[in-house]
Amino acid sequence: MSLKLTVLGCHSATPRVNANPTSQFLEIKNHHFLIDCGEGTQVQLRRYNVKFSKIKHIFISHLHGDHVFGLVGLISTFRLLNRESELHVYGPKGIKEMITLQLKLSNSWTHYPLLFHELSSKEPELIFEDEKVEVHTIPLDHRVYTNGFLFKEKLGERKLNMNAVFNHKEIEICDYQNLKNGRDFILKNGTTIKNKELTLDPSPVKSYAFCSDTSYFPEIIPQIKQVTALYHEATFLNDKENLATITKHSTAKQAATIAQNAEVKNLVIGHFSGRYKNKELFLTEAKSFFKNTILAEEGKTFVFE
Amino acid sequence: MSLKLTVLGCHSATPRVNANPTSQFLEIKNHHFLIDCGEGTQVQLRRYNVKFSKIKHIFISHLHGDHVFGLVGLISTFRLLNRESELHVYGPKGIKEMITLQLKLSNSWTHYPLLFHELSSKEPELIFEDEKVEVHTIPLDHRVYTNGFLFKEKLGERKLNMNAVFNHKEIEICDYQNLKNGRDFILKNGTTIKNKELTLDPSPVKSYAFCSDTSYFPEIIPQIKQVTALYHEATFLNDKENLATITKHSTAKQAATIAQNAEVKNLVIGHFSGRYKNKELFLTEAKSFFKNTILAEEGKTFVFE
Repeated sequence: MSLKLTVLGCHSATPRVNANPTSQFLEIKNHHFLIDCGEGTQVQLRRYNVKFSKIKHIFISHLHGDHVFGLVGLISTFRLLNRESELHVYGPKGIKEMITLQLKLSNSWTHYPLLFHELSSKEPELIFEDEKVEVHTIPLDHRVYTNGFLFKEKLGERKLNMNAVFNHKEIEICDYQNLKNGRDFILKNGTTIKNKELTLDPSPVKSYAFCSDTSYFPEIIPQIKQVTALYHEATFLNDKENLATITKHSTAKQAATIAQNAEVKNLVIGHFSGRYKNKELFLTEAKSFFKNTILAEEGKTFVFE
Repeated sequence: MSLKLTVLGCHSATPRVNANPTSQFLEIKNHHFLIDCGEGTQVQLRRYNVKFSKIKHIFISHLHGDHVFGLVGLISTFRLLNRESELHVYGPKGIKEMITLQLKLSNSWTHYPLLFHELSSKEPELIFEDEKVEVHTIPLDHRVYTNGFLFKEKLGERKLNMNAVFNHKEIEICDYQNLKNGRDFILKNGTTIKNKELTLDPSPVKSYAFCSDTSYFPEIIPQIKQVTALYHEATFLNDKENLATITKHSTAKQAATIAQNAEVKNLVIGHFSGRYKNKELFLTEAKSFFKNTILAEEGKTFVFE
């Protein structure tokens, strides 16, 4: 199964015509995750025909407006659409008060269960887990408390090597699950057949790391090592490295350097400053340090096989 | 001078592609007023090239999301654009806490003076006044505390009737201001010349009444009597009058009935429910009760001479 990322907004600071603030829709193992929710995200979800009623988990990196000001509107729209299923919001401490105050003042509390999971740890945390997927925070370095998020498929069960299995008449269908779970098989004569002789490795797991907003912060490298895809902010080009340092953002070169050192398979860059008209300059700069770089683009869906 | 109204959003409930929630930009006597500020308003201001740095006063009718969720983003954008001049926000009690909490949590307090004028009276109030314009609240009947706003030019000074003035050699330039102020002129022989013989009436004043959201509420009629233009919400057609009553909204027929009974010069209707695809039905219904009706339309500027 593929990892599917739809970019809803990939620009920094203020929303403009055809330049939306950060939001992404991630499909992984039948989960539909929304990451960040700048103003206008709900319209972007409609514009790109994203089935947003499927979203059950929203992850907010930090409380700067261009990452969160669209959240209360989306929550309210779910109410108007008669949503019934739970909605989980993960974000920095304060996000619950921010949203609930607005719902209270507009006298429009949700009819569906709205559950907040407030984050305050400066260490990576496992914040979501089921049988298929895990989500961990990636503490970042920005002007306010900020987390990236690491979405990881869990390793599936081993696959039966049917040719090998059929060689042993004693192995029956009811034994298959034990083999998938990694257990050896013991013949009636007492001989042990090693699991490895009967099964194949499970499909390799895919993973997605979302890292925005952040200064150049190599501390994240061990956590994002060899991920299938890394989204790393690249607000500036290298000519504004000084400004990136002051504002705790990154340059395209820095994003690519992180990708290179973390040996990720693909790098997506975004969060472009409005000062640059030609986005290709970001791609050129990043590619000279990390070849497998692609530009985030609003409405574009990337499939990582 | 004309009264100029630019419609930024005229749809109800959730923002959709090409259907924005309520916001209007009003130009009256060199004032630039923003009325309501649903999500996406700042992008609409850019889309229609409204010089939004000129806005100094924002009037918020009520705290439902489709009238206010764009406000915090606009306030933040003014900060990023290095605004220095004062910004005044008029709206229901609670609006200050709603905005300041978000600015606090995003650690992005404005560098410019941001002044809130919270409203809670159920009677009409004069909330803004200078030498040219007055703004009054128009208490409305909706599910939460809501005010419309009445924007009124002040009566200017009388105009000199130069033919009459020149007939009296004794009247000098230094007397003109007294005449404009309405004073009679006394000749040296003691004869009084009535001001009316020397001056003409000032230009008639123009006025604009914004009334949204509200149920059918004839109590507003005395306050909006004979205004130059009335914006009245028309969320539903007459076939959904029952739904209008329950949700405390109005039908096109009811908006037109208010306009007719208030003898206004022009009626603009908007706040259309997304259930109706054909907006012309609103116009047809309203026009059969009040001929001078026009449909609000996003990006459209109406000039009332």
